[in-house]
Amino acid sequence: MALTAAALAELAKGELRGDGSVEVDRLASLDRAGPRDASFLASPKYAAQLSDSNAGVILMAPAFADLPGRAPARILVERPHEAIQSLLPALYDLSPPEPWIAPTARLGRGVVLEDGVRIEDYVVIGDRVRIGGGTRLYSNVTVYAGTEIGARCIIHSGARLGSDGFGYVFQNGRHVKIPHVGRCIIGDEVEVGANSTIDRGSIDDTVIGAGTKIDNLVHVGHNVRIGRACLLMAEVGIAGSAHIGDGVILAGQVGVSGHVNIGSGARIGGQACVMGDVPPGESWSGYPARPHKQSMRATAAMFRLAPIIGALERLVGRKNGEGEA
Amino acid sequence: MALTAAALAELAKGELRGDGSVEVDRLASLDRAGPRDASFLASPKYAAQLSDSNAGVILMAPAFADLPGRAPARILVERPHEAIQSLLPALYDLSPPEPWIAPTARLGRGVVLEDGVRIEDYVVIGDRVRIGGGTRLYSNVTVYAGTEIGARCIIHSGARLGSDGFGYVFQNGRHVKIPHVGRCIIGDEVEVGANSTIDRGSIDDTVIGAGTKIDNLVHVGHNVRIGRACLLMAEVGIAGSAHIGDGVILAGQVGVSGHVNIGSGARIGGQACVMGDVPPGESWSGYPARPHKQSMRATAAMFRLAPIIGALERLVGRKNGEGEA
Amino acid sequence: MALTAAALAELAKGELRGDGSVEVDRLASLDRAGPRDASFLASPKYAAQLSDSNAGVILMAPAFADLPGRAPARILVERPHEAIQSLLPALYDLSPPEPWIAPTARLGRGVVLEDGVRIEDYVVIGDRVRIGGGTRLYSNVTVYAGTEIGARCIIHSGARLGSDGFGYVFQNGRHVKIPHVGRCIIGDEVEVGANSTIDRGSIDDTVIGAGTKIDNLVHVGHNVRIGRACLLMAEVGIAGSAHIGDGVILAGQVGVSGHVNIGSGARIGGQACVMGDVPPGESWSGYPARPHKQSMRATAAMFRLAPIIGALERLVGRKNGEGEA
Repeated sequence: MALTAAALAELAKGELRGDGSVEVDRLASLDRAGPRDASFLASPKYAAQLSDSNAGVILMAPAFADLPGRAPARILVERPHEAIQSLLPALYDLSPPEPWIAPTARLGRGVVLEDGVRIEDYVVIGDRVRIGGGTRLYSNVTVYAGTEIGARCIIHSGARLGSDGFGYVFQNGRHVKIPHVGRCIIGDEVEVGANSTIDRGSIDDTVIGAGTKIDNLVHVGHNVRIGRACLLMAEVGIAGSAHIGDGVILAGQVGVSGHVNIGSGARIGGQACVMGDVPPGESWSGYPARPHKQSMRATAAMFRLAPIIGALERLVGRKNGEGEA
Repeated sequence: MALTAAALAELAKGELRGDGSVEVDRLASLDRAGPRDASFLASPKYAAQLSDSNAGVILMAPAFADLPGRAPARILVERPHEAIQSLLPALYDLSPPEPWIAPTARLGRGVVLEDGVRIEDYVVIGDRVRIGGGTRLYSNVTVYAGTEIGARCIIHSGARLGSDGFGYVFQNGRHVKIPHVGRCIIGDEVEVGANSTIDRGSIDDTVIGAGTKIDNLVHVGHNVRIGRACLLMAEVGIAGSAHIGDGVILAGQVGVSGHVNIGSGARIGGQACVMGDVPPGESWSGYPARPHKQSMRATAAMFRLAPIIGALERLVGRKNGEGEA
Repeated sequence: MALTAAALAELAKGELRGDGSVEVDRLASLDRAGPRDASFLASPKYAAQLSDSNAGVILMAPAFADLPGRAPARILVERPHEAIQSLLPALYDLSPPEPWIAPTARLGRGVVLEDGVRIEDYVVIGDRVRIGGGTRLYSNVTVYAGTEIGARCIIHSGARLGSDGFGYVFQNGRHVKIPHVGRCIIGDEVEVGANSTIDRGSIDDTVIGAGTKIDNLVHVGHNVRIGRACLLMAEVGIAGSAHIGDGVILAGQVGVSGHVNIGSGARIGGQACVMGDVPPGESWSGYPARPHKQSMRATAAMFRLAPIIGALERLVGRKNGEGEA
């Protein structure tokens, strides 16, 4: 959908400099843009790329207006990054895809699909699954029997919803599988990333609250409950029966131990290992996770320790490692 | 399969209190149960949920018998959690699914399937694969050529068995792929979780011992050998040629370096990073992993260090960070 | 493809000892080899397995020539591991598979496939995807609309290329999805492991440089740029907009924070958490990641601290944990 620089400036409520008749078709970063791309400069970090950019139009903060560059048109706006978002609907077709059940989708007995569901190729849906209106399942998704998915959800390719939890009883030298009869219940407006896995409950259910967003390759164990509007970033792992409140943010690769409670509004730093309860609203990090400031101070102290550990050992009359278990 | 409270009490060998004619269809947690659900109270942690529960029948330890609640029937048993397991076969159809080869399953040349195998939709099985009796492959599984899977295994959706290992030789500025001709061999009664990946060997084989259970999103590299009856929890990663004994437990997100040996019966704590050999029967944790008690003491010391590091630096006459590499 | 020990000795440029007429069909490790397998002994670590091995032929370094064993033929070579690689083409069919588009592959509108592409069962390819010559997509792969894949790539089963990045704006208590219109661009000769996920860009593109190899279960976030000839081992996670140079090695389970730069030639140790920029050519490790030597020293100091922390606290007149936040 071609647009002129003048049209873009009007949409972005910005000030046009240069040739308003230049046409662009899409957006691109400064260093990858060509003459029919619009680009933007929002941070001084990328200012050096301005002079070499081949973009046809560049949105930029007024502070950068005098920097050299060969783009035939510039648009000055206070917040270039937000302005560029406002141009998306004019340049791209962002309408949701049509409802559709791919002929290759396999639906079990008693499956209930509300209006506007879209199910793409090679999706497999078990018996008695319910899927709310407007939800989209990308290709190659598996939904185990009995799972419930809310309305307006997006389930990305390769996600597995409702697989058996990891539960065994050790008897006579063997791990005997515990039957899993609980459900996997996904609230409205949840997004589940590519290749993520959410197990069904054992007797209880696994529940993901409305509006929670889950990134790629995340694992959610059996009987876990996650509240509303949480963010779980890539490769997070949550062990069985952990309870997580509303609005919690778990950064990438965070691990949460079984049966732990994380209070609403808590934020957990990347790769942290949460082994005990986290109070609401707190920021925690580290291995094991502790309040973020405490973790930062402990880590800083550890790096300051190295150059003086020998002197300290001499001070208390102990040789390196002596008496260590 | 509806059952009365009286029938449940008999099955659970418990003492009925209240209305034995109440009927329930399934099990649920206290806070999610409705009038046709049976629930249970096993831990004081959930005792507060008893009074508000809508369950029709509640199994509970005799110690909780006098707590208030509106369930029309209670069943008193010493071990409510075990008792509830004993009710599962009466309330749910736990019979294994019928053997079946889905018409959409793709089988390569020379595939050998023993009796009772079940292969669900969109499974792809390469040439010369062998699968033992009673094994179930959920939908969307891929089994690369030459893989061998034992009897009575459960392979969850999206698992990839026998993919090439990650091996290259660096020549003339390029990573040149090493051919992988070893096999991926899965013993009897192994369970592999959703979206887990187990690579084939390079020349040697990758071997998973009988009775070992693998959770979701686990990676097992080429030439790894894992013994019998191990538990690998979600998001564990095992690098190439590591050898793991029998009965080893790796908690969630554990990483094991290449060529490391972990002795039989060892237990590794969540998110630990195993960089050297672990003797049999020991519990290790931490980053890098060390014997668990040693890791705990080191971590505790690190947190105690922060408030005194400044005083210690003054004591040995060194400024913050001075001389640090 | 059966070969005699004499023929193998000639191919491996080694010295035959024993019966040159012994025939073998394939390769195997010492402890798993049978009479029709060739095996090898390259390291003293495995010398104990020599006497019990049932292999028909064993390649070994001359230093091991006098060790006892019952193999009917031995081949003495200076570098047994390299020699065994040279035998692979004689014993196995290593020719690349025929170009093929499986009838079950689903191709969107405007897909462009160059010569020699192989697309296996149940692969789903979105609109306007371009795939270079000789590239192979294993079964069950998903390629989202607009993705570009170079020539001679190998994409393993279950990989998801071009899925939406994890980006939301928090408005009125809800996480509102940011449209993703950038592309996912994979260079020539890239290998992507099983079940790995590479997101498309938001406005910018996600770019994987030529010759980079990616292991299983790796996550690459939106707008990430990775240079040429990098190695990303299993379960690595790279958050959005991180930039990684050429020839970088990220060991297993490494996490890289958003917007971080890792310079060319850097090496990051297993499970490290990279939260800040890493200069070119450096080796970093730890949580948080620091230069490897510094991390090693800090960790060693932490373990030496435990036995003396009590004495140090007494020395500075502070009780355990006093004043800790």
